[in-house]
Amino acid sequence: MENVLKNWWYMAGWANEITRTPMRRILLNQPVVIFRLQDGGVAALEDRCAHRNFPLSMGCLIGDRLRCGYHGLTYDAAGRAVYAPGQPQPPRNGDVRAFPLIEKHGVVWIWMGKAELANAALLPPLGWLDQEEWRTYQGGYLHLKARHSLLTENLLDGSHVGYLHVSTIGGEDAEGHSNAVTEITPFEFGLRRRRQMPATKAPFSYRRACPSLNDVVDRWNYSEMRPGFYQNYTGAKNVGTGALEGDEVGGFQSRSMQAIVPETDHTTHYFFGGASPKSNFRPEKVEDALAAVLTTLDEDRVALEAIEANEAFVGDRPTVNLANDKSAMQWRFAIKQMLSAEKNELARSA
Amino acid sequence: MENVLKNWWYMAGWANEITRTPMRRILLNQPVVIFRLQDGGVAALEDRCAHRNFPLSMGCLIGDRLRCGYHGLTYDAAGRAVYAPGQPQPPRNGDVRAFPLIEKHGVVWIWMGKAELANAALLPPLGWLDQEEWRTYQGGYLHLKARHSLLTENLLDGSHVGYLHVSTIGGEDAEGHSNAVTEITPFEFGLRRRRQMPATKAPFSYRRACPSLNDVVDRWNYSEMRPGFYQNYTGAKNVGTGALEGDEVGGFQSRSMQAIVPETDHTTHYFFGGASPKSNFRPEKVEDALAAVLTTLDEDRVALEAIEANEAFVGDRPTVNLANDKSAMQWRFAIKQMLSAEKNELARSA
Amino acid sequence: MENVLKNWWYMAGWANEITRTPMRRILLNQPVVIFRLQDGGVAALEDRCAHRNFPLSMGCLIGDRLRCGYHGLTYDAAGRAVYAPGQPQPPRNGDVRAFPLIEKHGVVWIWMGKAELANAALLPPLGWLDQEEWRTYQGGYLHLKARHSLLTENLLDGSHVGYLHVSTIGGEDAEGHSNAVTEITPFEFGLRRRRQMPATKAPFSYRRACPSLNDVVDRWNYSEMRPGFYQNYTGAKNVGTGALEGDEVGGFQSRSMQAIVPETDHTTHYFFGGASPKSNFRPEKVEDALAAVLTTLDEDRVALEAIEANEAFVGDRPTVNLANDKSAMQWRFAIKQMLSAEKNELARSA
Repeated sequence: MENVLKNWWYMAGWANEITRTPMRRILLNQPVVIFRLQDGGVAALEDRCAHRNFPLSMGCLIGDRLRCGYHGLTYDAAGRAVYAPGQPQPPRNGDVRAFPLIEKHGVVWIWMGKAELANAALLPPLGWLDQEEWRTYQGGYLHLKARHSLLTENLLDGSHVGYLHVSTIGGEDAEGHSNAVTEITPFEFGLRRRRQMPATKAPFSYRRACPSLNDVVDRWNYSEMRPGFYQNYTGAKNVGTGALEGDEVGGFQSRSMQAIVPETDHTTHYFFGGASPKSNFRPEKVEDALAAVLTTLDEDRVALEAIEANEAFVGDRPTVNLANDKSAMQWRFAIKQMLSAEKNELARSA
Repeated sequence: MENVLKNWWYMAGWANEITRTPMRRILLNQPVVIFRLQDGGVAALEDRCAHRNFPLSMGCLIGDRLRCGYHGLTYDAAGRAVYAPGQPQPPRNGDVRAFPLIEKHGVVWIWMGKAELANAALLPPLGWLDQEEWRTYQGGYLHLKARHSLLTENLLDGSHVGYLHVSTIGGEDAEGHSNAVTEITPFEFGLRRRRQMPATKAPFSYRRACPSLNDVVDRWNYSEMRPGFYQNYTGAKNVGTGALEGDEVGGFQSRSMQAIVPETDHTTHYFFGGASPKSNFRPEKVEDALAAVLTTLDEDRVALEAIEANEAFVGDRPTVNLANDKSAMQWRFAIKQMLSAEKNELARSA
Repeated sequence: MENVLKNWWYMAGWANEITRTPMRRILLNQPVVIFRLQDGGVAALEDRCAHRNFPLSMGCLIGDRLRCGYHGLTYDAAGRAVYAPGQPQPPRNGDVRAFPLIEKHGVVWIWMGKAELANAALLPPLGWLDQEEWRTYQGGYLHLKARHSLLTENLLDGSHVGYLHVSTIGGEDAEGHSNAVTEITPFEFGLRRRRQMPATKAPFSYRRACPSLNDVVDRWNYSEMRPGFYQNYTGAKNVGTGALEGDEVGGFQSRSMQAIVPETDHTTHYFFGGASPKSNFRPEKVEDALAAVLTTLDEDRVALEAIEANEAFVGDRPTVNLANDKSAMQWRFAIKQMLSAEKNELARSA
């Protein structure tokens, strides 16, 4: 699988997807079964019994042990074969891989690389996703028949908004977006981008969510791309009330997150969610918020799937870059460095 | 095609499937057209006209000759091109392969290897499938998107019954089955297995079919696996009335057969049928008997297709064997020997 | 792509398919976008933006410029990148290929080879397709899951009519067709075939369309096969009124055309149309004429798709030719010569 950092946390699913009924999901070309333990914890094993490759997700949990639905070979949550019918001891070499998981703020993360390198400090900060004073919409999901890197670059690139999303979010002031002052800063795990639009027209949706906003406002958009994960903090306050100096509270605020998880070489899991202060949250229902986002993201899905399909015919032709591809180009450089660092680290630790 | 004995009889279909309307079936990766002759006999040719590869099964029978539906090139039942429109003589090199067939006990068998090696003595004994005193259910068929060897090992392996079939046939006394004394004996064409369960609880279904049975009975299960064909003879009699010494008549008896016919590298034809003495036959209707068996076999289909699909992801990983895989291991050894013997024989006869 | 002349005109579509809404069509394994200009002209570009391979057919026309629907990169009708959002000049190396097109007699032709070799003199003569005194049915289309050469040989071969089309057009006098005197003449761009049937029974459909015909008539059938294009002129006049000496006017006349356009290695676009003198035109409605032809051509589609699918199993087996394959054999020779001439010409001009 190309351009994929393996020793990294990827979103495996939403917390409420993981239950006592084992769930199968293909992640980075590997079938994984994920399930919830009796104490409320989560566990993930490769989704194949070591005996006959039957998907363990078609078996069932006996306490915290997962029993294969074909012949009854039984595993504990660490992937150890602990019981085999018809013999006194479980087979040697019958264990399967277990993957480190972390459940936090409603998201379950998985580490598909070397388990001993798993490090919780590498998780992106997502505290806003379940704080009391904000209302959150979680559970967004699209299956994408396109490779992950197309989606990553789509998210890094604001310049398609005025074209691809012209009938949804791109309608208002596409020019304004293009002219916003943008500052991209590499950091250890990817890129951060800051855009500020001083004294600009407030979008209608902002004013509806936050009636105290004037017609002209200071807007900001701060985002961060890590491998497989994007988040964005955007909002507006009345002009000159400090928003552009770091005091974003008091006007309209909105945060969103998008997880880009390679499924196979040509397909991607696309999770999304968001939050706003309860006073700002529009529409009132979480389901409606998800549906509104979905309409836009589905335009991306259609576009990226069209590119993936077109490349079956034209994929060997060189492409050109535009001035607006600066973020994408910086990302390509950043991910290359991270991939190279991972290679060196694995070589050292081998 | 891996692990397939070519010079061997495979079930081509049920007798009532073969009619005056030519039928196409892919067998061992080869398209075959099968049809019934005017005298009631059966014939099989490769299902491609030698002229332009049109499937002969889309043509029609003129007497005992099969005429291609595209340009009228006509074959006799031996595959000889006997007529071509627009020319005085049929073309040289226009013949197609004919395959030896045998119709017996309601089953049509085909020999896909060297025709001169076809030997009726190699057919499995199936007299019970159409004897007067027994009632038979024929016609069972499932299409399996999994390779043939997965099904063969599934049939050889009793230990999955208590897990995969827990909601159908595996419900009663799975432990009892696991502990039955099992004796596996290789023979010239495969394996025979004898299991006896003296003084054990009679299944409810047995007692319903044979009310003279007591609560505790002597049970047996004798089966035979040949390449592509499995049959099983099972039953119960009251304790100590001779069942375990070879006198099986007088209680409950049931026979079944399962043909495992490679279609392509990753798909398999699965035919099944069975019989019981008329006095034992439950349910009363043949259709109901087929439906009852189908429910169980479909659980196998789902499992084997899940393995086949999972191996697209994990197929290169080694697997482990369990103590219960003894039959499967002996089978792997037996088929290896038969394949090697075939190779030697073909080398000798070449 | 095998056996395909690249420097040649292929039918890209019917004129009324090309509108201000850009249309995608795969031709010779290449995605092409075709659209109509403001002055009524037509243009074709490769259907991929040079920036990110997005299909330009999903964009929209701004005047005569095609704007990519993803990021707004904009092309003129010659494929030159003329505008890119966010930068003063369009990117260098951002151009895409434009393909020469000709619209004539209701048909749009495309030249997929070297643009400088495109030569209108190589178009087949199709004046009959939109002349005032004849009524025309255009717009016929079938998508064929079979390679183009199967269709070409099908059209060259009259001998399948009495078999494959026995229930449609092959019903009357199949023998008569087989025995017609046929003369095949190679010409610079393919083959011409003349068949004459003096003093033969008039088909019922001819007499219905032209009531002045007697029961016995002189019939002719003149056809021409070029790479990717077939046309046919057939008819009948009362015996001895000069039809067989070149004076075909005055009885029943019918012309038809069939374009055979490779889509991918295993799929083909199949366009068809036809015309008759207004006095002969039966049925009265153009839609009914198309529907009648479609019934027959769909029999060909089913047959050719069956061959293509069968060859996945038997494609490596040699085939035999029949006496009736003379036209097909001459065609294979002719196309081989044209392919070799193209190769030499390209080598010279390189």
